[in-house]
Amino acid sequence: MEPRIVVDVMGADRPPAELAGGAIRAATALPIRLILVAHRPLLPPLPPGVEVLECPPAPEHEEGATRVARREDTSIARGLDALRRGEADAFLSPGSTGAVVSAAILRLGRLPGVVRPGLCASLPTLRGEVLLIDAGATADSKPAHLVQFADLGAAYAQAVLGIPSPTVGLLNIGTEHGKGDALTREAHPLLARTAGFVGNVEPHTILTERPVDVVVAGGFSGNLFLKAVEGGAEAVLTMVKGALRSSARARLGALLSRRALRAVAQSLRYEEHNAAPLLGVNGLVTVAHGRSDAAAIEGALRRTFQASRSQIVEVLRSRLSSPPAEPGLANPGDPRVPSATPTAAA
Amino acid sequence: MEPRIVVDVMGADRPPAELAGGAIRAATALPIRLILVAHRPLLPPLPPGVEVLECPPAPEHEEGATRVARREDTSIARGLDALRRGEADAFLSPGSTGAVVSAAILRLGRLPGVVRPGLCASLPTLRGEVLLIDAGATADSKPAHLVQFADLGAAYAQAVLGIPSPTVGLLNIGTEHGKGDALTREAHPLLARTAGFVGNVEPHTILTERPVDVVVAGGFSGNLFLKAVEGGAEAVLTMVKGALRSSARARLGALLSRRALRAVAQSLRYEEHNAAPLLGVNGLVTVAHGRSDAAAIEGALRRTFQASRSQIVEVLRSRLSSPPAEPGLANPGDPRVPSATPTAAA
Repeated sequence: MEPRIVVDVMGADRPPAELAGGAIRAATALPIRLILVAHRPLLPPLPPGVEVLECPPAPEHEEGATRVARREDTSIARGLDALRRGEADAFLSPGSTGAVVSAAILRLGRLPGVVRPGLCASLPTLRGEVLLIDAGATADSKPAHLVQFADLGAAYAQAVLGIPSPTVGLLNIGTEHGKGDALTREAHPLLARTAGFVGNVEPHTILTERPVDVVVAGGFSGNLFLKAVEGGAEAVLTMVKGALRSSARARLGALLSRRALRAVAQSLRYEEHNAAPLLGVNGLVTVAHGRSDAAAIEGALRRTFQASRSQIVEVLRSRLSSPPAEPGLANPGDPRVPSATPTAAA
Repeated sequence: MEPRIVVDVMGADRPPAELAGGAIRAATALPIRLILVAHRPLLPPLPPGVEVLECPPAPEHEEGATRVARREDTSIARGLDALRRGEADAFLSPGSTGAVVSAAILRLGRLPGVVRPGLCASLPTLRGEVLLIDAGATADSKPAHLVQFADLGAAYAQAVLGIPSPTVGLLNIGTEHGKGDALTREAHPLLARTAGFVGNVEPHTILTERPVDVVVAGGFSGNLFLKAVEGGAEAVLTMVKGALRSSARARLGALLSRRALRAVAQSLRYEEHNAAPLLGVNGLVTVAHGRSDAAAIEGALRRTFQASRSQIVEVLRSRLSSPPAEPGLANPGDPRVPSATPTAAA
């Protein structure tokens, strides 16, 4: 059956009609049933088959995330409730991350055994995409949360990205053992028992060398890292564009290399890396960038569809109820995994 | 009198002879007396006037920072001791940050009232350089440390960069009050009493809009931010270079815009932003990048000379012994400084 995906087109920076346009474009190309949650008068004419969940036009921007999360009449609450009642299979929102996370925990609950759900973002690197969990679901993380993030992220890499034995690294400011703050120093020995764990990974290496498939971080560090990378990339692209307008000669050069440079800008656009799933809640919820435009929502819906098709929530549920190291993940023969001694296989 | 600056050419990734070359080039152009700390046989022939502090050729890389810091026979210890004995005015090292910081605190001590010295890095942004403190002197910071970092950083911005009333922001994952982890949430109200404090600043905004002159952060976050920005910038530049080689047309374009693009790469090179002073210790110590080459050391020595000429350590000493808000910094008339109510002027 085609997955029923609810898309929240309210609460982002751009107008609902624009975001709805992107969602409709994706829905035309994919085998999904699209349900828009929106204030009806703000929507464009809809093609047949697209449903609408009505919600008030109220601006949710100004309130705190926790307040928004408790309200019953927001687009976020309406979408999540449809998911809870089994009337939808996935919910995508470009609303405030804090509000979506709080509301999802409140309305869907957590999967059995999950202490903190983690936001699993995807980042472009010079060597393909890398996953980052927690990208900012909760700011204050404890070492045990990081161990669970590692497991959730590895399961996602396996089920959705098709990586047979994902490797996992801890985001840190040095590679040596003993480096970092209290959180990373305490998490490191606990993570050593996780299948696929290779140790600390540094921010710059992640982007240039992609040393692992999954990067684990506390929510504050993960979000900081994500935003710093975005800022660094945007700043450099702006400088390059400026330089290419700086002289007649450079302008001519820019004209000739335009297509190649546009491909770079394109590959960095967050559209293709939009829609971070909130792993660990009892339902498939993905969070898109608040600055999303139509193209970004289109990309985000494609990612949400992939996650939905992989049955990621069911995969996580069965994984959490079975012994920590599953046969598929544990790979003692992998030379990159020195500490992978799964308790089940020992 | 010309400042006497000790440059440690051991302990970095590149050979001592190469780094010595960069230091000598800077010393030729600047009114300084250069003292190299090195194992003599590893140095090239030296021009007249350049002194050498002998140290063993021992590799210091493999040991832990604290172990290295306690040793008496390292290039770091030799350089710091010269500073302590008054035989030099500044010490520049591209050695392990951890080792330099620990050794500097151990051998020079802290300025009166300083709890934790902070590493004050300079970052290129789209709108000029921004200071970041603490860029990684100590991983575990407390809210009170951040308040002192703000004061040290603002004093440096004023004395060395000549910014009359520096503005200060707290590195955080959101701009709203109440955002962040325990450290930033607790530091925010304390910082509100700091002259020039404007609130939280987000990573990407720092690079594109440069909302403040000084960014305050805990050492872990500061270092993570710095490395993420470096990685993001390097990744994009590599992508751009790759794209410009991707077709004959793009290669021709690249040829024409080469000079402009080289200027971008140049402006991003850390050379010009090398040499982060360790503010709060009893002497002028600057830390350069471990990957520094000759040009990077040349730039770092230029920055160290500027800091030395501004008498930054004396400025900090007198600032720390006077009331928190100095007339020069406090600027209640500045509309950007809503909370600047200096106790001395109240």
